Amino acid sequence: MHTPLTGPVHPGVDSAAVHRPASVAIIRDGFWATRRRINADVSIPEGPQRLEEAGNLANLRAAATTAAGTTPPAFSGDFQFQDSDVYKWLEAASWQLADAPDPGLADDVARLVRLVADAQMENGYLQTYYQLGGAEPWTELGWGHELYCAGHLMQAAVAHHRATGSRDLLDVAGRFADHIESVFGPGKQVDGVCGHPEVETGLVELYRTTGDKRYLELARYFLERRGQGVLASGADRGHDRDPGPEYWQDHAPVREAREVTGHAVRQLYLLAGAADLATETGDVPLRQALERLWTDAVSTKTYLTGGMGSRHDWEAFGDAYELPADRAYTETCAAIALVHFSWRMALLTGEARYSDLVERALYNGFLGGVGLDGRTWLYVNPLQRRARPHERPGDQASRRTPWFRCACCPPNAMRLLAGLPHYFASADDSGLHLHQYATGEYVADGFAVRVATAYPWHGTVTVTVDEAPAGERTLSLRLPSWCTQFRLTVKETPGHEQPEHGWLRVTRAFRAGDTVRLELHLPVRLTHPHPYVDAVRGCVALERGPLVYCLEEADNPGDLDGVVLDSSPVPTVRERPDLLGGVTTIVASGRRLTPDGIGWWPYPTEPAPARQADRSQPVELTAVPYYAWANRGDGAMRVWIPGPS
Amino acid sequence: MHTPLTGPVHPGVDSAAVHRPASVAIIRDGFWATRRRINADVSIPEGPQRLEEAGNLANLRAAATTAAGTTPPAFSGDFQFQDSDVYKWLEAASWQLADAPDPGLADDVARLVRLVADAQMENGYLQTYYQLGGAEPWTELGWGHELYCAGHLMQAAVAHHRATGSRDLLDVAGRFADHIESVFGPGKQVDGVCGHPEVETGLVELYRTTGDKRYLELARYFLERRGQGVLASGADRGHDRDPGPEYWQDHAPVREAREVTGHAVRQLYLLAGAADLATETGDVPLRQALERLWTDAVSTKTYLTGGMGSRHDWEAFGDAYELPADRAYTETCAAIALVHFSWRMALLTGEARYSDLVERALYNGFLGGVGLDGRTWLYVNPLQRRARPHERPGDQASRRTPWFRCACCPPNAMRLLAGLPHYFASADDSGLHLHQYATGEYVADGFAVRVATAYPWHGTVTVTVDEAPAGERTLSLRLPSWCTQFRLTVKETPGHEQPEHGWLRVTRAFRAGDTVRLELHLPVRLTHPHPYVDAVRGCVALERGPLVYCLEEADNPGDLDGVVLDSSPVPTVRERPDLLGGVTTIVASGRRLTPDGIGWWPYPTEPAPARQADRSQPVELTAVPYYAWANRGDGAMRVWIPGPS
Repeated sequence: MHTPLTGPVHPGVDSAAVHRPASVAIIRDGFWATRRRINADVSIPEGPQRLEEAGNLANLRAAATTAAGTTPPAFSGDFQFQDSDVYKWLEAASWQLADAPDPGLADDVARLVRLVADAQMENGYLQTYYQLGGAEPWTELGWGHELYCAGHLMQAAVAHHRATGSRDLLDVAGRFADHIESVFGPGKQVDGVCGHPEVETGLVELYRTTGDKRYLELARYFLERRGQGVLASGADRGHDRDPGPEYWQDHAPVREAREVTGHAVRQLYLLAGAADLATETGDVPLRQALERLWTDAVSTKTYLTGGMGSRHDWEAFGDAYELPADRAYTETCAAIALVHFSWRMALLTGEARYSDLVERALYNGFLGGVGLDGRTWLYVNPLQRRARPHERPGDQASRRTPWFRCACCPPNAMRLLAGLPHYFASADDSGLHLHQYATGEYVADGFAVRVATAYPWHGTVTVTVDEAPAGERTLSLRLPSWCTQFRLTVKETPGHEQPEHGWLRVTRAFRAGDTVRLELHLPVRLTHPHPYVDAVRGCVALERGPLVYCLEEADNPGDLDGVVLDSSPVPTVRERPDLLGGVTTIVASGRRLTPDGIGWWPYPTEPAPARQADRSQPVELTAVPYYAWANRGDGAMRVWIPGPS
Repeated sequence: MHTPLTGPVHPGVDSAAVHRPASVAIIRDGFWATRRRINADVSIPEGPQRLEEAGNLANLRAAATTAAGTTPPAFSGDFQFQDSDVYKWLEAASWQLADAPDPGLADDVARLVRLVADAQMENGYLQTYYQLGGAEPWTELGWGHELYCAGHLMQAAVAHHRATGSRDLLDVAGRFADHIESVFGPGKQVDGVCGHPEVETGLVELYRTTGDKRYLELARYFLERRGQGVLASGADRGHDRDPGPEYWQDHAPVREAREVTGHAVRQLYLLAGAADLATETGDVPLRQALERLWTDAVSTKTYLTGGMGSRHDWEAFGDAYELPADRAYTETCAAIALVHFSWRMALLTGEARYSDLVERALYNGFLGGVGLDGRTWLYVNPLQRRARPHERPGDQASRRTPWFRCACCPPNAMRLLAGLPHYFASADDSGLHLHQYATGEYVADGFAVRVATAYPWHGTVTVTVDEAPAGERTLSLRLPSWCTQFRLTVKETPGHEQPEHGWLRVTRAFRAGDTVRLELHLPVRLTHPHPYVDAVRGCVALERGPLVYCLEEADNPGDLDGVVLDSSPVPTVRERPDLLGGVTTIVASGRRLTPDGIGWWPYPTEPAPARQADRSQPVELTAVPYYAWANRGDGAMRVWIPGPS
């Protein structure tokens, strides 16, 4: 019997998933252990204080104590979905408790669970904005986020139950789900969907935990109902602009959509929920639609960092190949949602490419959103920041901030980091699969292995088998798609396995003490954009292993606008334990153009580079990992560097 | 005595303006005559019907007939500033009447003037949105647009008076201005400014026409009061996002600002009004601030088309060199406002560079907004449109539309075209200046000349002197900055004049019958972007004379994303009287990349162009003038074409 570890996404035993989550996945040391320690020691413990300051907890208390017929106190916060921040924190804290006991944290969790339970109405409804007089429940489906909050409550409840065994929050979520089930459906009080998807994945997880098929059916209803223009009116309270149906993926049903479009986080949460549904129902056309949409997103609308969402305007996907570096919106939550969606597809299909993208998003687009200090965050994650940019207050500036007016990202990042080991290993009928590499222990289906690695700084991954099932079985290691040179050693003997669709499969009768060593060659790579990506034509990016690098003004004083990378010599690496918590930097040769080389009209008829070549100065360029940017003030930054013309 | 022609911007005789508008400027034939004929025959006559359909006239009627204390009928339209569309149309129709008598049009004008007069309140206040119950007047300075509408009313009234001699509308505007003067000021009912500048220029023009210095002082008050955070609260009715003070130029006074920023049209209207003020007051530090801001705008934030405003988000200027082709907002009104601002600076300083930019904006960024049929319009004017772009309803899509929900652009374009000759000639103490070239007649300060030209298709401009003042005087012809080769012939003798700061000055004792012929060489130019303009690095644009060209899918079937321009042979031109109302096209050699040359991950480590070079197909490319794009359906378009790598 396979017992999945305490984490999100437990496909049912009868599901269509090709892979099962590992039953144990523990990150002991190294890159992610450091980031998870800061999450456990700083980010999560400080969460309740942030939620108190922002008024989220006051809202719950007010909802609990306001008697019917009396005038409620004013709602705190600018958004109808303030409650969801509490739920995401509860989910993060629950995964954290599953990882390591912490009496203080357990007390905080219990306290917030009580607050949530006390705020719930008799009929099961729970959203403080509407309970405190915002409007009648279920009258603002476009912007109200009621089902969105419910979905986060469900996921938090599932996490709390899996981590603690308690049913306290699970019962709250169940009562709310039952209420929703009584209200929504053809011929019922409301026949519609929420402007922001999320309830779909929450309902499927609730089904997985409770076994109650009504929740699965309700998720299916919301998925199938969407895409028929049910949200077309668009203009709820306080919103004077109509975003159009693509904004909230109401222009076409998921199974008919040809492209990802609209608000990136909404699109990706919807696809994650659809993947859960396809997993539990074995719906093959739906799975095929998801494969098609994932491929569309990744091949035409994804940044080098794994970030998604090209437009500030409506926080939206752009057109195919519309990928500006400077105005990339690439919300931290979109990178998180992409990990959610991709991991569900990895389990459903067993294909390595999904985890390949998870790796890219984790190390770059996602982690860039988390300050090195664990208490400052980025909401948008552009690939270029010019000196002295113009940002307005609501811009969710590309500057690390302790908390946001719309604070969706910080607790979202906390829950991903707290549940991170869950995304690193799985099993299928052949044996154990390692999707990501971190020093630790991984157990599934009779396999128990230890991994030792200094990844991503060094490329050697040593897997030691502590237990193995009887007979011939397979240990599968993902070969990252960026890797063109590697060496596999099995029990100190060179292996000759070649990757099959991204998996290096070592098949044999394993015994305790067997080792498999994978050495990934980690040269500095000069990466070019697809010729259709207009915004960064003529530029190259520096990458090494899974890490995207960037130039920051802090290491490269002066004007980053005028920097050009030389074609030779080949860039070198330099280990810098003193810098940014310890990083390997890339050192390259370049030139800096004379800034005033062109007059007042910036479109000369003769080629500008030729005119300026003899007035440029040689310069040594130092690049740092993108995830570490913006931790040293507000200087300029760029990932894509103009190449020699 | 110099009598300026019937047009906008009449600097006073004691003003600081170096130039005076011509007293006669008539465009008889050629490029602009065609466009102005369509404006006169189609756009302006159909205006009242559009305003009726959109409810603008109903609002005026309702305001006129609603007695105090009764419930007014509902306001029509989505914006507080619907009235301004009427005023802009009245201004356009007035300039048109000055150009050519038209009894039908005169009747329409008189009818709308009566509607406006009847709608005015006893105390002089006039804005139907607030009169019909929107809110108390002067309580929504940020978004209310009350002074903005007042400014357009003043400019319309000045036009109506100059064109017809009637005081009917002028008296309405004067009463409103008097009311504003009684309400606004230090220690008065309101000490603040309007979120959208425009009243400043209206008040100065009203001062110029009435001689009432209170209007000049009021304009000065609004200009000096702005920039002190008086609009900082930001969140009026129906607006849930705070745009920040830069949005409406309330972050710094104009005379202290270092950069143009925020909403582009607001910024440029403000600068036009400030230029009027500097002209009438001789305020040298203000003039210097305007010169600085104009240079900042043009050298770092202007598109090749003369368009301004890089961001859809808040319709705003971007950072320096943030000039994406695809998501360029470049509102038609911003190009118009840039013409307004630049022309005022041209009169104030006598410098040619301002009219150089006017030419660029007129032929490209502005004219692209006007459909060839005179009844469809563009609101945004991007320099690239991909195939099948995602646009939401509110996007003011890059697709020609008969009228907009926010219909600021169409009547704005009408008034610019109707008053266009005014921007073509001026005089200073030395003599006549020709800023733009069109077949017609121009009179100023004793000079009367006829111009014959087929500009911009052909480069020869022949100026025949019909009358000349006595003694040695100067005829100044602007040499466009794009022109590197020209020939000047004075009375059939080669002239040897060299340009002085953009002016070719022919000085002599002119006599009737003298001719000056300027032959501008019009080769196809391959124009490169400044190396800091990241968005179009590695691309070239095709230009010829003042015209920017573009590739449209209609002439270049297939995928425009994959097109690359060859470095040779040199592109050629082809006259196409059959196409788009008669254009000269540019024909160039290029290649089309194989679209599927790269797999699902669009960032290959080896250079993509090299991989694809052997799989590209040669293709003949046909470019048309940018102003004519989007008149043949919704296909792809691009101005910047990738060059050979």
